[in-house]
Amino acid sequence: MRTIDWVGGAVEVIDQTALPDELRMVRLSTVDDLVDAVRRLAVRGAPALGVAGALGVALAARLHAGDDAGLAAAVEAVANARPTAVNLRRGAARAAARLPEGPDAVLAEALLVRDEEIASSTEQGRRGADLLTELCGPAPRLLTHCNTGALAAVVGGTALAAVLELHRRGALAGVVASETRPLLQGARLTAWELARSGVPCRIAVDGAGPFLMARGEVDAVVVGADRICANGDVVNKVGTFAHALGAAHAGIPFVVVAPESTVDESTPDGAAVPIEDRGATEVLTFRGRRTAPEGADAVNPAFDVTPAALVTAIVTDRRVLPGGRWPATAAPR
Amino acid sequence: MRTIDWVGGAVEVIDQTALPDELRMVRLSTVDDLVDAVRRLAVRGAPALGVAGALGVALAARLHAGDDAGLAAAVEAVANARPTAVNLRRGAARAAARLPEGPDAVLAEALLVRDEEIASSTEQGRRGADLLTELCGPAPRLLTHCNTGALAAVVGGTALAAVLELHRRGALAGVVASETRPLLQGARLTAWELARSGVPCRIAVDGAGPFLMARGEVDAVVVGADRICANGDVVNKVGTFAHALGAAHAGIPFVVVAPESTVDESTPDGAAVPIEDRGATEVLTFRGRRTAPEGADAVNPAFDVTPAALVTAIVTDRRVLPGGRWPATAAPR
Repeated sequence: MRTIDWVGGAVEVIDQTALPDELRMVRLSTVDDLVDAVRRLAVRGAPALGVAGALGVALAARLHAGDDAGLAAAVEAVANARPTAVNLRRGAARAAARLPEGPDAVLAEALLVRDEEIASSTEQGRRGADLLTELCGPAPRLLTHCNTGALAAVVGGTALAAVLELHRRGALAGVVASETRPLLQGARLTAWELARSGVPCRIAVDGAGPFLMARGEVDAVVVGADRICANGDVVNKVGTFAHALGAAHAGIPFVVVAPESTVDESTPDGAAVPIEDRGATEVLTFRGRRTAPEGADAVNPAFDVTPAALVTAIVTDRRVLPGGRWPATAAPR
Repeated sequence: MRTIDWVGGAVEVIDQTALPDELRMVRLSTVDDLVDAVRRLAVRGAPALGVAGALGVALAARLHAGDDAGLAAAVEAVANARPTAVNLRRGAARAAARLPEGPDAVLAEALLVRDEEIASSTEQGRRGADLLTELCGPAPRLLTHCNTGALAAVVGGTALAAVLELHRRGALAGVVASETRPLLQGARLTAWELARSGVPCRIAVDGAGPFLMARGEVDAVVVGADRICANGDVVNKVGTFAHALGAAHAGIPFVVVAPESTVDESTPDGAAVPIEDRGATEVLTFRGRRTAPEGADAVNPAFDVTPAALVTAIVTDRRVLPGGRWPATAAPR
């Protein structure tokens, strides 16, 4: 089962807003369908968004053949569906570069993006697991935030691919999944994926992570990234920065696992990244039920910036980038 | 309107689990009723729990007159209804010390505890507002966690009393209330109290606070405390520590406002405090609806420990205690 794929002339995705209650596939036959699915987070996660961007342009190329203005508008709509994740725009741009060659070439490029993400996930899992074992020893207790598993990619995932690889190797004690308000990707998606794989998992509220680290219940934090800046700042789901502060205070490694495609040398640092505010409703409601008094307002940054100084290492499918907390005893790579 | 009071031979409380949907008073006529209300957080907050402990013993003294064994068991049940908050046990002990003089003397002592908390709140608000103005200037933007308002006390509150006093003085720009999972005291109760008082308020998920501070949107963090240890460590609602890390990283003040009764010289430090785990259900559900997959587990510490080194100052109704981040430029008190 793939989180996102091209099936019979359309894009099919697992509707992640329905999990864990229901495993529901959604067929996206128009560009509007796809943009809507991206916006409401039916499909999410940096690698999956890269594939969504590419497949979205492939869809546009087929539906708008011969209509240059309509095609350009559709490509723009796909690329801009969410402003912070660099992969969506990058996947769209890769497929769009083949537009002069016609719809089939665009689709071939998009399927290549998909296949590269699958291969990348395997490499991230292997390299991430190797590093976590090197840093933490034979059976670490890990904490992760948001969802970086197969549901964030096509199969496998990023940070969660490393967690699952450790589990396959018999080299993992267990996982704390922080629930990840407002949309509960940790409680709904990560806990679901870990349970399916038989990994011992405890869910914690987002505010508890740093305390669990201080109390000695976590050996390392491992998270994904939506964008990695030229200076090593990491843009990821809101709440990541607080966990990085907790890890630094507790003196435990803070490891980022993300595809090389997330590294954006054209973004100098985190301050240069537009941080999407997803509006008050997500914060003021919980799975459809209002939680706050009428008239209440909210601030809802979807991402935050973890400064490079708080990061132990960034693992991609190709390399390990030492961060500001890279241990003096470890050999730089 | 009082959050907790003695009315016609029984304890009356606002049922805080019903807010913000409904403002409902509950009458607690038996010790079991009172213990249950404390356990399910219908009444909560350090000052209110002190009054609940004292009034609970007054109730026990009337209902168990002449039954020494039953009375002793009832007093123990009240004092131990929640293990972390020192005020509950202390309020119960104060009232229990008058048991040899009969039920009327016990009630008189309990009402004295209530009246002292009311007076204490006024002093905390005044002293807290003075210090925040001194540290932040004329119109700070504050962030607070959990609920420390009138709903946590009898009237007024602790940290929120200082916030409201600043608002009355026209010396407050606005407040970010972190929602405070799992039970949403921030989103449900603090936002409700601030709206009733006309204070501009934005709710944020708990993971967003440190990032909002790093982004320059917060001038100081002000929170309450459930217990203050002899070394200055602060035990408060889970998530407080993460906000203290964020404040230290951003270089903004982290101020604790709590009644003197919260200071417990017999507890050397935070490591000596039993931290109540309230069980998985609160984390795995949200206002009655399940959020995580079947079979998922959770870890649910209700409190955390903020080391004294991360605290700028602790303000009580009697004094300002400099913490480890007390600014070199400020005169010690």
